[in-house]
Amino acid sequence: MKQIYKILATFTMVILFSTLSIAQTTDPLPSWNEGKTKASIINFVKDVTTKESAHFVAEDDRIATFDNDGTLWSEHPMYFQLFFLIDRIKALTPKFPEWKEKQPFKGVLEGDIEAVKKSGKKGLMKLLAVTHTGMSEDQFTKTVKEWMATAKHPRFDRHYDELVFQPMIELLSYLRANGFTTFIVSGGGIDFMRPWASRVYGIPPYQIIGTSVKVKYENGINMRLPKLQHYDDKAGKPVGIHYHIGKHPIAAFGNSDGDFQMLEYTDANPKHKTFQLYVHHTDAKREYAYDRKTLFGKLDKGLDYAREHNWTIVDMKNDWKVIYPYELKQ
Amino acid sequence: MKQIYKILATFTMVILFSTLSIAQTTDPLPSWNEGKTKASIINFVKDVTTKESAHFVAEDDRIATFDNDGTLWSEHPMYFQLFFLIDRIKALTPKFPEWKEKQPFKGVLEGDIEAVKKSGKKGLMKLLAVTHTGMSEDQFTKTVKEWMATAKHPRFDRHYDELVFQPMIELLSYLRANGFTTFIVSGGGIDFMRPWASRVYGIPPYQIIGTSVKVKYENGINMRLPKLQHYDDKAGKPVGIHYHIGKHPIAAFGNSDGDFQMLEYTDANPKHKTFQLYVHHTDAKREYAYDRKTLFGKLDKGLDYAREHNWTIVDMKNDWKVIYPYELKQ
Repeated sequence: MKQIYKILATFTMVILFSTLSIAQTTDPLPSWNEGKTKASIINFVKDVTTKESAHFVAEDDRIATFDNDGTLWSEHPMYFQLFFLIDRIKALTPKFPEWKEKQPFKGVLEGDIEAVKKSGKKGLMKLLAVTHTGMSEDQFTKTVKEWMATAKHPRFDRHYDELVFQPMIELLSYLRANGFTTFIVSGGGIDFMRPWASRVYGIPPYQIIGTSVKVKYENGINMRLPKLQHYDDKAGKPVGIHYHIGKHPIAAFGNSDGDFQMLEYTDANPKHKTFQLYVHHTDAKREYAYDRKTLFGKLDKGLDYAREHNWTIVDMKNDWKVIYPYELKQ
Repeated sequence: MKQIYKILATFTMVILFSTLSIAQTTDPLPSWNEGKTKASIINFVKDVTTKESAHFVAEDDRIATFDNDGTLWSEHPMYFQLFFLIDRIKALTPKFPEWKEKQPFKGVLEGDIEAVKKSGKKGLMKLLAVTHTGMSEDQFTKTVKEWMATAKHPRFDRHYDELVFQPMIELLSYLRANGFTTFIVSGGGIDFMRPWASRVYGIPPYQIIGTSVKVKYENGINMRLPKLQHYDDKAGKPVGIHYHIGKHPIAAFGNSDGDFQMLEYTDANPKHKTFQLYVHHTDAKREYAYDRKTLFGKLDKGLDYAREHNWTIVDMKNDWKVIYPYELKQ
């Protein structure tokens, strides 16, 4: 009888100690180098999730919002949704041969960026209308899925959904493991993201917010209309958060001036301690280096504000061990 | 040594059998009377959650949408949000004494429904504007919370959030326990529901869809504007589902013709077996009895369609053992 108790006691101690040592040694952010950036994330999470902390936040209020382009995946040499747009114009041209002689379509087909730029906002709207609207929600989803499974990035020769940031995927998981609910809040198209973002980021479609077009319902089908419903950039981000989430986030992650208002709104949370982070693209060799003077993902005013207000700034080159998930398999 | 094993074995068997017998005897819908309505719900849930079933649906696609007024809580003698509106007009009148002589405010203050009706849609918009807009999202949330904690229903003398349907609350829990994600899709105001619906229904604010006004962001604050953003009734319900969820539901629950398109859209799910349910208000004694000829929650075309298409119809009087949660405590 005594012997059994001894065995059971030893067994329990072994389990207990191995659990403790796992908890102490498993790094939740293995692709992040040690340093003040990583420490600022971990310290914040500990501060708001520790019951005894003065800054403890109940799980219901642990809302974290992430920009997508340039924050969760790359956005150069241009937004990936623009590659989709160009590929769709090319794929549709056999049905509309007149496009070969008509701007802005001609410019897209011939790679004449100046001609496309010259067609202005009206031209871009025409391109968006023929590639993103005039079909049902289900048809559009199918088109995006097919494109994502075939198209490849010109520099990396990888599918676009392979060009997501491994350190940010770890961060999403780490936050969720600590009771956070994670959202995407992107200037990109909500329905361009939903078909693949759930699989890649582990975020369900109803936690994805983005720029949207109006749809019209009839006989079981939602048809996509060439009219803007919500423009989810700059001041549109906190507005989109209000419509979809109905709560101030306590943590927000972006990389450009377009994310500034989302970070500012999070910082203005009236109830809780908050966290703001900018990804600074500093790695021309492994990804791209840009900030104040780029067309895609400009970070100028936001960078100064972040430095003045002690927001966390990720230096991609020095803070991240790897950029893309496929590097781990090489 | 042998004795210990015997004790352990007996102990294990006892635990095992008591667990099994709990699983067999615990009724997930105790406030529902046995019968074909209850059976149709349970059969559907078993059919889509049993791995071996031909109709098995993965958890990601188990989306269930619920109307609120008349489906999750009462809506008579009028929508509860209208009581809120009237109470707000009364509370604000000391600040705007001119309202005492000016329609539609005068009509509201004097309970002169004909005068209010006569002011038409324009009058209603005026009332909505002064009671629901012109303040920040946080101020409005606070106002709704305070009202909900104090105002009482004229017939039942209970707080409005006590007048939710116990059988539907059990249904929400039962679906969630079976891997469903539950949403509210209501013609009522999204920001009128969010402050209390999470607590009462266990549905987070980002899974609540409703009619919304535009907000404008500036300096950390979202201000509510007197402009409609989304009207979430009739065809607006599947449209709202598209904007917020981005997926067809597999189960939808309503009680009026305003819910018809949501149920039709769910029925048109291109991938999965689906379920549609109408709550039919047949209990004048315990709640209210109405369908084809009421101003609030009219069920006419939908009732015929449901009967022809084999949608489930709840007969409140006969299918529900209790209506409100407080009856259980009496």
